[in-house]
Amino acid sequence: MIRVIVPATTANLGPGFDVLGLAINLYNEFWFEELESGLKIEILDGGNDKLPLGEENLAFISAKRLFDKVNYRYKGLRITIKNDIPTGCGLGSSSTAIIGGLLAANKIASANLSKNELFQLAAEIEGHPDNVGPAMFGGFTICYSAGPSYRAVSYKPASNLKPVLLIPDTGLETRKARSVLPRDVPINNAVFNIGRSSLLVSALLLGDAGLLSEAMKDRLHQPYRASLIPGLMEMIQRIEEATGAGVALSGAGPSLLCIIDKSSEKVFLNEIKDILSSLGANYRVQPVDFDLEGARI
Amino acid sequence: MIRVIVPATTANLGPGFDVLGLAINLYNEFWFEELESGLKIEILDGGNDKLPLGEENLAFISAKRLFDKVNYRYKGLRITIKNDIPTGCGLGSSSTAIIGGLLAANKIASANLSKNELFQLAAEIEGHPDNVGPAMFGGFTICYSAGPSYRAVSYKPASNLKPVLLIPDTGLETRKARSVLPRDVPINNAVFNIGRSSLLVSALLLGDAGLLSEAMKDRLHQPYRASLIPGLMEMIQRIEEATGAGVALSGAGPSLLCIIDKSSEKVFLNEIKDILSSLGANYRVQPVDFDLEGARI
Repeated sequence: MIRVIVPATTANLGPGFDVLGLAINLYNEFWFEELESGLKIEILDGGNDKLPLGEENLAFISAKRLFDKVNYRYKGLRITIKNDIPTGCGLGSSSTAIIGGLLAANKIASANLSKNELFQLAAEIEGHPDNVGPAMFGGFTICYSAGPSYRAVSYKPASNLKPVLLIPDTGLETRKARSVLPRDVPINNAVFNIGRSSLLVSALLLGDAGLLSEAMKDRLHQPYRASLIPGLMEMIQRIEEATGAGVALSGAGPSLLCIIDKSSEKVFLNEIKDILSSLGANYRVQPVDFDLEGARI
Repeated sequence: MIRVIVPATTANLGPGFDVLGLAINLYNEFWFEELESGLKIEILDGGNDKLPLGEENLAFISAKRLFDKVNYRYKGLRITIKNDIPTGCGLGSSSTAIIGGLLAANKIASANLSKNELFQLAAEIEGHPDNVGPAMFGGFTICYSAGPSYRAVSYKPASNLKPVLLIPDTGLETRKARSVLPRDVPINNAVFNIGRSSLLVSALLLGDAGLLSEAMKDRLHQPYRASLIPGLMEMIQRIEEATGAGVALSGAGPSLLCIIDKSSEKVFLNEIKDILSSLGANYRVQPVDFDLEGARI
């Protein structure tokens, strides 16, 4: 039996649309076992009971993709999933399934594909690299495509920084969240995001928490996605102004990612509770840490 | 008599359009002296003899802007300019005049404006902050506007990196170079540049020269400006592929900036000569260094 652990991820980080991401210490776990025949998929207690249990299961699809690529003929498969990351919340749950499937299948087939090769496959299945990058490599990642291939560079974020997630009761379909984005954008907004993403990279590498509230501002996707998440922009602005934290939609949302200086955690947690309750926003506040390892068997 | 020294700058660095810049150890010098009356502007031997010598001189305009702001009534002014940075080549020559004028006037009027306040004025005069930022603060700068105000953060580039300029015989009017840019851009090209500028920030801070050829690619301004500089894109691609260097238009061009690892300088200088001569391109190859101090009196 092969056990794969894959971290949650938060992508975009505001200005780094489809580029920047962070791995977070919440995990989904996948157990894979080759059977004589058939497909058995089981979700452990407490997980999302809406995940498909047949051939449309994403962990299975991804495993099969790898088997096909390396011409491995599996007989049957048992997949057990421990699903601790909330689904449909912008925390990279589907990326964990893709990477879990690929890593397990790589081992079962003794294919010995490298993490870079598996990342390439994962980004192709996902369609964009900014969640599968940090889920695979851990830490803070810059993902980009160069011609037909996806690439990722992973860094250790400065140790004084602390991520805090705000997770709502209800999820959002990523597909819907992507359909509201425009095809063309004003060049001024592109320049706006280039400035903030540049600033964010330096702030995350060097630990300059004072830059984060400016560095996590975005004009390329959040203003459009706000139409699907009522009150989003006001909430972000309110938290930024009151706490000085960096605040952004986590992936396509609706969860929010805040990044603060560790030394201000206690103050921040008090402030954020007051803000959420004054806005009547049903978000769970979850302080987390960076995952620096990425997916592992 | 007040003497101000201001470094040359190279802006954009490929993907960081209107955002990223570097200060370079080529300098213009400005001597300011208050007279009883009149305006006398002199360009020292070997400088650009086309610079205006009257009230339309940019160093004078900038000095006067500061005098007006702080309500200082100057009687007369003698400005002497030593002009070692080629003009109209994308090396920030006009930014040096703006900053030279502001710093000198700040001293003459005993106005005690901070470098940040002077940078703000300089960016307003220039219309964009990406040259005046590094010229003022030195090093590698990330410049951006937040509401009505311009901001700059300056960093020391990794010490293993080496800039090399390719400077052509003839200049280009910046105004013309800006008029060819589109108002809207495909969001995919914005994402392309966000990825590269993020990568470039980490490569410059951490000294990863192997990333530079990818990290200095751009889709937001160089492809449009290529219409004004025949053969530009082919030349950039040729240098990137043959040498592995990062290559980009310096500012609006037509100079090019290459960034390499110091250890490969000798090999690079040989290769670049061959490439330029095989392309019949009249560029002077000038290895330079980063200026880490910025403008000083």
